[in-house]
Amino acid sequence: MYYTIRWDGDSVSMLDQRLLPAHEVYHTCTSHLEVAAAITDMVIRGAPAIGIAAAMGIALAAVRMTVSNADEFRKELLQVCDTLGKTRPTAVNLFWTINRMKKIIESGTGVQDLKARLEKEAVAILEEDVTINRAIGRNGARYLADGDVVMTHCNAGALATGGYGTALGVIRAAVEDGKKIQVIACETRPYLQGSRLTAWELLQDRIPVTLITDNMAGYFMRQGLVKKVIVGADRIAANGDTANKIGTYTHSVLAKEHRIPFFVAAPISTLDPNTPNGDAIVIEERGIDEVAYIMGTQIAPEGVFIKNPAFDITPAQNISAIITEKGVIESPRDKGIKSVL
Amino acid sequence: MYYTIRWDGDSVSMLDQRLLPAHEVYHTCTSHLEVAAAITDMVIRGAPAIGIAAAMGIALAAVRMTVSNADEFRKELLQVCDTLGKTRPTAVNLFWTINRMKKIIESGTGVQDLKARLEKEAVAILEEDVTINRAIGRNGARYLADGDVVMTHCNAGALATGGYGTALGVIRAAVEDGKKIQVIACETRPYLQGSRLTAWELLQDRIPVTLITDNMAGYFMRQGLVKKVIVGADRIAANGDTANKIGTYTHSVLAKEHRIPFFVAAPISTLDPNTPNGDAIVIEERGIDEVAYIMGTQIAPEGVFIKNPAFDITPAQNISAIITEKGVIESPRDKGIKSVL
Repeated sequence: MYYTIRWDGDSVSMLDQRLLPAHEVYHTCTSHLEVAAAITDMVIRGAPAIGIAAAMGIALAAVRMTVSNADEFRKELLQVCDTLGKTRPTAVNLFWTINRMKKIIESGTGVQDLKARLEKEAVAILEEDVTINRAIGRNGARYLADGDVVMTHCNAGALATGGYGTALGVIRAAVEDGKKIQVIACETRPYLQGSRLTAWELLQDRIPVTLITDNMAGYFMRQGLVKKVIVGADRIAANGDTANKIGTYTHSVLAKEHRIPFFVAAPISTLDPNTPNGDAIVIEERGIDEVAYIMGTQIAPEGVFIKNPAFDITPAQNISAIITEKGVIESPRDKGIKSVL
Repeated sequence: MYYTIRWDGDSVSMLDQRLLPAHEVYHTCTSHLEVAAAITDMVIRGAPAIGIAAAMGIALAAVRMTVSNADEFRKELLQVCDTLGKTRPTAVNLFWTINRMKKIIESGTGVQDLKARLEKEAVAILEEDVTINRAIGRNGARYLADGDVVMTHCNAGALATGGYGTALGVIRAAVEDGKKIQVIACETRPYLQGSRLTAWELLQDRIPVTLITDNMAGYFMRQGLVKKVIVGADRIAANGDTANKIGTYTHSVLAKEHRIPFFVAAPISTLDPNTPNGDAIVIEERGIDEVAYIMGTQIAPEGVFIKNPAFDITPAQNISAIITEKGVIESPRDKGIKSVL
């Protein structure tokens, strides 16, 4: 059985998601800089998973640091937090876990005690994440009916989290309840998280999955073949507007057109009450080679201008419900996210 | 300067569109079976272009045939027509050009005369297509304003036709009128006609083009960056419902949501008054490897179930106007296509 990320005492290992589905290879990081690079380069991705990785990066810097002066130790670790906070801008979970680690760093104990507590906190963040995802699954499973065909975008599964997944966690919980669920996975260009990760992950669990290209979503919805849509999130603003993988907004418009319920599944750590609405969320623009090349093969002519926003904003009015571990926000357009905070 | 397809007297050569944009290689067919394979394998694609290719395939079979008995000659050629008619099911232009060739075959003249007339007809079909596209361009150019950013899907350009293009013909005509037009090309998975062909073709003409993945369309529309959408067509039913490359329907829903005019540009030969509506159009399902592999690289896990419909249906009510060489059908939902027939 695979794992997404693991704490190994003096290193962090993670499944190299760039190489899936062809190769199942684990990538070992022995410094926080290697963890930062792994996040930026998308060895690991998914809002909850990069939050866990950042926490482990901080713990790794702590346990390996040879400084004995507590003030200096704290100062260096806060710089480590800054470095990890600059890896990717959109997912708020990253800042949420870094802040948890910062609270410990800023508490007034000695170096050895801090090292032990930071290590413990990083491992706890991972373990809690799996517990949270199971709770999200339980809270969401009732929205899926026996026989449903559920469309998802990108990968909001075990590979995007500590395990079990958010959107795929809801599907897993419904399957555990004995419901027959079929999944339609949109391939999710440019990075192909749908074909490379979601399809792979669901095949491992023997949950029936059909892969389509993103632009087929409307075709299958119009034929009545999609009963629900469920996606994860990278940041949910106070009014319920949701940043998620590019293409999510398009699916939400299609779901509205075809009167298909559209669900977002995410932990509370993805909710950002300090961001009033989607317009205030920074959308990461990634390098154009993700569009111009696929797995190393050039598909666009040299010199063409390319745009590559990694996320888009789905307005709250397109979302039927936001499913969290602390409860479900039905019709977030009406009252935003405060009911679960 | 490149050409899409050319009649060479005893062979047909065509730009191998499978190898663009990396390689500009011409593919020579010396039999109608090679032409049929070139259509099926998408050496050449685009509704008007495959119509021309089929006509040239018939002419090629005719000029190379050694049979001297006129009845036998006709009988064999009608079998050639059948073979070419089975290459791809959705685009009606294929059947339209085959029927033009059949009319000559079925006229009662001798073998040498038939050979000369079939060759002449195939070449005429190519030349007429370019004239038609220029007329489509003239009829459509007035719908594009100076400074417009125009989104297109797939490739309805010179590479999809005898030259100049349908949707891209309208853009070219507007540019020839001195308007500044910027194009957003959707890459068009799975076959990447947008990135591989449209971006390449527009770069050759120095028309500014930005390449995006299909799932970014909603994001750019929501930001107000798309002023018009224009696409080609593979078959337009009597009521105006339009079959075009998979993904077109999704774009039409997005355009409606954002109140962006959505145009279809196509020759009269794409209009099919014998098909009452979109439900009656056969949608070609192509092999799953187009989704599972990109340019030879595997991107989906072994064993996953995949769907690959090559086209979808955009209902007439999502179409602002259908632009043909014989005039423009505004609001086709109201009266179908009969005004230009």
